[in-house]
Amino acid sequence: MDIEVLNGLLRPKAIAVIGASNAPGKIGYTVVKNLIDSNYQGDIYPINPGSDEILGLKAYPSVLDVPGDIDAAAVVVPAKYVPDVTAQCGQKGVKGLIIIASGFSEVGFTDLEERVVNTAREHGMRVLGPNIVGILSNSDSCNASFAPFLPLPGKAALVSQSGALLIAMDAATYTRRVGFDKLVSIGNMSDVNFADMVEWLGQDENTACISLYIEGLKNGPKFIQAARDAGKPIIALKSGVSAHGAAAAASHTGSLAGSGQVYDAAFQQAGVVRAADLNNLFDRTLALSLQPPMQGDNLLIVTNGGGVGVLATDAAERYGLPLRFAPEDVQEELKKHMPAFGSAKNPVDLTGMAGMDWYQGSTRYAFAHDWVDGLVVLYCETAMTDPVEIAQGIKQAIDESGITDKPVVVSFVGGEQSAEARRWLVEHGIPAYDAPDMAINAIAALREYARNTAEATTPFQRHADVDEAKAREIIAKVRAENSTSLTEVESKVIFEAYGLPVATTRLATSEDEAVKTAEAIGYPVVMKIMSPDILHKSDAGGVKVDIQDEASVREAYTTILANAKAYKADAHILGIAIQEMAPWGTEVILGSIADPTFGPTVMFGLGGIFVEILKDVTFRVAPVSADQGMTMINAIKGAPILKGARGEEPGDLQALSEVLSRYSQMIHELGDEIQESDANPVIVYPEGKGVKVVDARIILKEK
Amino acid sequence: MDIEVLNGLLRPKAIAVIGASNAPGKIGYTVVKNLIDSNYQGDIYPINPGSDEILGLKAYPSVLDVPGDIDAAAVVVPAKYVPDVTAQCGQKGVKGLIIIASGFSEVGFTDLEERVVNTAREHGMRVLGPNIVGILSNSDSCNASFAPFLPLPGKAALVSQSGALLIAMDAATYTRRVGFDKLVSIGNMSDVNFADMVEWLGQDENTACISLYIEGLKNGPKFIQAARDAGKPIIALKSGVSAHGAAAAASHTGSLAGSGQVYDAAFQQAGVVRAADLNNLFDRTLALSLQPPMQGDNLLIVTNGGGVGVLATDAAERYGLPLRFAPEDVQEELKKHMPAFGSAKNPVDLTGMAGMDWYQGSTRYAFAHDWVDGLVVLYCETAMTDPVEIAQGIKQAIDESGITDKPVVVSFVGGEQSAEARRWLVEHGIPAYDAPDMAINAIAALREYARNTAEATTPFQRHADVDEAKAREIIAKVRAENSTSLTEVESKVIFEAYGLPVATTRLATSEDEAVKTAEAIGYPVVMKIMSPDILHKSDAGGVKVDIQDEASVREAYTTILANAKAYKADAHILGIAIQEMAPWGTEVILGSIADPTFGPTVMFGLGGIFVEILKDVTFRVAPVSADQGMTMINAIKGAPILKGARGEEPGDLQALSEVLSRYSQMIHELGDEIQESDANPVIVYPEGKGVKVVDARIILKEK
Repeated sequence: MDIEVLNGLLRPKAIAVIGASNAPGKIGYTVVKNLIDSNYQGDIYPINPGSDEILGLKAYPSVLDVPGDIDAAAVVVPAKYVPDVTAQCGQKGVKGLIIIASGFSEVGFTDLEERVVNTAREHGMRVLGPNIVGILSNSDSCNASFAPFLPLPGKAALVSQSGALLIAMDAATYTRRVGFDKLVSIGNMSDVNFADMVEWLGQDENTACISLYIEGLKNGPKFIQAARDAGKPIIALKSGVSAHGAAAAASHTGSLAGSGQVYDAAFQQAGVVRAADLNNLFDRTLALSLQPPMQGDNLLIVTNGGGVGVLATDAAERYGLPLRFAPEDVQEELKKHMPAFGSAKNPVDLTGMAGMDWYQGSTRYAFAHDWVDGLVVLYCETAMTDPVEIAQGIKQAIDESGITDKPVVVSFVGGEQSAEARRWLVEHGIPAYDAPDMAINAIAALREYARNTAEATTPFQRHADVDEAKAREIIAKVRAENSTSLTEVESKVIFEAYGLPVATTRLATSEDEAVKTAEAIGYPVVMKIMSPDILHKSDAGGVKVDIQDEASVREAYTTILANAKAYKADAHILGIAIQEMAPWGTEVILGSIADPTFGPTVMFGLGGIFVEILKDVTFRVAPVSADQGMTMINAIKGAPILKGARGEEPGDLQALSEVLSRYSQMIHELGDEIQESDANPVIVYPEGKGVKVVDARIILKEK
Repeated sequence: MDIEVLNGLLRPKAIAVIGASNAPGKIGYTVVKNLIDSNYQGDIYPINPGSDEILGLKAYPSVLDVPGDIDAAAVVVPAKYVPDVTAQCGQKGVKGLIIIASGFSEVGFTDLEERVVNTAREHGMRVLGPNIVGILSNSDSCNASFAPFLPLPGKAALVSQSGALLIAMDAATYTRRVGFDKLVSIGNMSDVNFADMVEWLGQDENTACISLYIEGLKNGPKFIQAARDAGKPIIALKSGVSAHGAAAAASHTGSLAGSGQVYDAAFQQAGVVRAADLNNLFDRTLALSLQPPMQGDNLLIVTNGGGVGVLATDAAERYGLPLRFAPEDVQEELKKHMPAFGSAKNPVDLTGMAGMDWYQGSTRYAFAHDWVDGLVVLYCETAMTDPVEIAQGIKQAIDESGITDKPVVVSFVGGEQSAEARRWLVEHGIPAYDAPDMAINAIAALREYARNTAEATTPFQRHADVDEAKAREIIAKVRAENSTSLTEVESKVIFEAYGLPVATTRLATSEDEAVKTAEAIGYPVVMKIMSPDILHKSDAGGVKVDIQDEASVREAYTTILANAKAYKADAHILGIAIQEMAPWGTEVILGSIADPTFGPTVMFGLGGIFVEILKDVTFRVAPVSADQGMTMINAIKGAPILKGARGEEPGDLQALSEVLSRYSQMIHELGDEIQESDANPVIVYPEGKGVKVVDARIILKEK
């Protein structure tokens, strides 16, 4: 990362506003005024060939006339002037352009946008935008945008692909009391994209949590890497996940929305926490920016009301943190802080009589206890207790416990007094919500962050015992034949080159060769027609199974050829494949796609109805480690079947996860060539007996 | 419904407060003070043997000393005095008791509670509580509770099983701006339960929407009927749906939490809309109390921001209202209210330039168009447009359209100005939210209400061609044998009595009888051991299939008996069942349970892994019509399999839905006897070819 350059762009010490104006209502006026109003401490250079002074500041005809250095230039001139302006900025040694102007790729002028970016790159400049609102930073007192004010101060940074949403969210930070240090509008992402922003914000001392509003990523793998390396929580609201929504997002931003499922996988692999909707983005950002991750599953709930306790318990299950009863010693101690009819289990019900003392006593003890990985304190407003006093009691107890490596989240349900207590808590670093479910959802975000980070950091170890050259040789041969479709035999050679356990399959081009091959492989065998023109071999009568001897091989050879001719007279027949007949087991499917955003992506699912009817599949961006392969196996609903749920022997999941890893390495390393592939079926045998790839298919990219 | 009595309890013209007190802090003081402070217009009679005057009102030693009539008595004396007080109230002719006092069944004193209810019933009184906060009503200016003030006025009524939550929600009505006319705390439900409240609120002119916080219902079928008859929207937040949550709810209220899935089914059958959490209860109540149901699936979204438009589109899919593009003529007209780069599809994107005029013009036209079943208007706060002005423009357009039978819901995302616009809209009858997803969720509630109402009103037509007497005869015979477990043959006779297509099965007690029976049924047949001591017939070698002739019948008879003896020497053998061998088809399962809350409940699912691994089943409280049976079939994930998704012939769903209806009638009519039953497997044949119940099982209730 060209950190100095990005610092210049995103934390500039001097800003030029190119297209500055004295006319209120013009963006060139608003941006200069916002910089002044935000108390920006750097130099502001309004650029306008027709004015000497703008809003009390000396104006210059061009950046080349400015005496001092310029870090960033906010560009608000019409799109057609931007290439020239960019060249001038390059000459001046500007580090980055904040191109607020619109009229580029979002309306089809992709060439114009490319010209600007190329010019900028020639001069070592970075470009934010075009088609953006600008950048806002509390810690730099810098509002270089046309959004009317800086957000409520806080520790999060928001990067938004929608400018309109950024402006509305800016205002909403005050009504929702969720603070941000920075808001960055990323627009067309002609140069600086989400990966760049995550990388840069990862090292920014004023950012504790990175919040993203994403319609479509560019360069998915780079984003995944940046997110893994960021070392701080990232939360993403991804829109355009519905089919209709994807169409709307595409028309809106011009970027590919991508498949929802692949995004799901990629975010998980990247350690990114998801927001379900806009409210959830605010709510989870608050927790992630104020509290540490939750490192284990033991959630303790302390409450003064049974009703909110039960709602929180339901929510805990819904959000993946089902409650467990607290250990005996914990219950015994907690009993001291409640009346006889209270409950010290989990939720810990202090009863409606609970005032500050009981809340403080129970919270101090529970938060410090080793068993507790995270604490949620619920309060239901009563007529007898003071919410603010209780809030202060909770805060004091947390401080006194001396624990800083586990999270606490609070919910106060009630009216204005509870709202005041929540504001006080948030100002003192404790996320507070107006509903119990929300507090649970928030602490679940902290748990997800810890879990996703664990998955994200599972290292992929490249398998060295592969023969990439052999694979590429086959591919070159197919390319030379002007084909993009590999036969089963060709596909299997490549699979074998990556150490995948394929059912041995050899091509025979004569009856005698068929017999020789069958004998080499060993009976029983399967025989299948090999023709680029016959895709559905069974329909063509092109498959015979369980062939036990020489006579049957000869008979099958003749029959299959005759059937194929009858099915399609002009079919180009390559020969007949002789295949080892794999014994029966549980069928699974591996597949791969070349995702437009994330590149080679592996799919896993159980065969038959599980894939066809239930769409019970899971994705990961390649490559994946065997550990991640195991996570994939466990992610499908039908996983119990592989584990022997129906009284059968558990399958060899170790071998299967290894196969997933090798397969993912294959599609990753050959990602420049392979468009899609599958291994279908793959038979999983009982533990220790391995798996077998029965059929294989590879389709190459059109070039 | 004893409407006069319930009116006396819930809209009293004169209230006695038994246990009234002059001591601030005592509930007897608070309740009197709250009645005075709420400007209650009826008579207030403080009852306290030790005081002449309480809070400026004349006090009486007992209700019997009060000169005027008393409609309701709020009871705040300690639990042990409540029976005497109840008797006095009965003598006085009080209509209903609001028993705020606690110390009854919730802490194990069930007898005490029963005594109170029995005494009340003897005098024709109804009892609300005990263990409640009280009742609050804006339209009656009546705060007969210890909650500190009346809620924000509105058109909804809340009935809460948790008193603490009711108090907190009372305060929250002001901060959330969701108005209620009434809040009713229902506590232990010793007498008045949710069904009574729904019935009474159904006819209450000041209630437009009934909101329920439920931990556990009593008398589920009565609740379903009351909800169906209410004729206005009902929304329920059901807690205790997780296993741990159910345990917490049970310890909290003493009522059975019931199975989440059966509640889901019952609410759907009752036409009740669900709330996902506490926020959702508020948010959906707002929409249901202000807007009419949405009668079709065509949702149109108008927006000024692509970002919120895409988020709303995703939400529409998530909440069961996937968007469709508006028809050409609609698009053409809408194009007039936006710049060239806007979009008239769906979402209709007026662009960030949209001011009041465009919003007004597009909304007026769209809302009046026949294609549109419901409208969501989104606004993303900008620096150039005035939210309040736009809100007023939208309201005016809706009014001018003259349409009142379809819903409109609005979202304004932004800061204080948007909040003001939302408040203005809500005050003018248009539900307004701070996030686009929430507006969609709210209009989805209005759609769910219309859909659920349709399912709730599908009438069950009793099948008259059943032989209940025959069924009861079999049951009586089994009871006479001191058994609760029917054999397959006995179960099938009952199934047949209800017109269910069972595979013919007859018991043979000798080899010759077996042969005669097999010949009567027709070959091939299946033979199975019949013994109350052998439940897993296959494991015992007690099943032989595909028996083709007399010799095989004789051989099977001997073998099965020998196997059974070997399996369990002392097993009581009833004989061997000879069964028609049903041809192969798609296997489904019907089952029934006696739900503690809802009574006989029917389950449906696909056989095999679908039930065992995926728990892909659906429930309905019995009885169900064939139409509802069809809804059940469509409700399972595996439904496409029954419809021929895998290239097979579509199954006879007509026959299957009829079977579901008859089966549900059987378990309903014999609900006093049957504990559980199943038909497993039931084979579904291609369209027009019917279904066949292959195996059947009935277990009777312990008596």
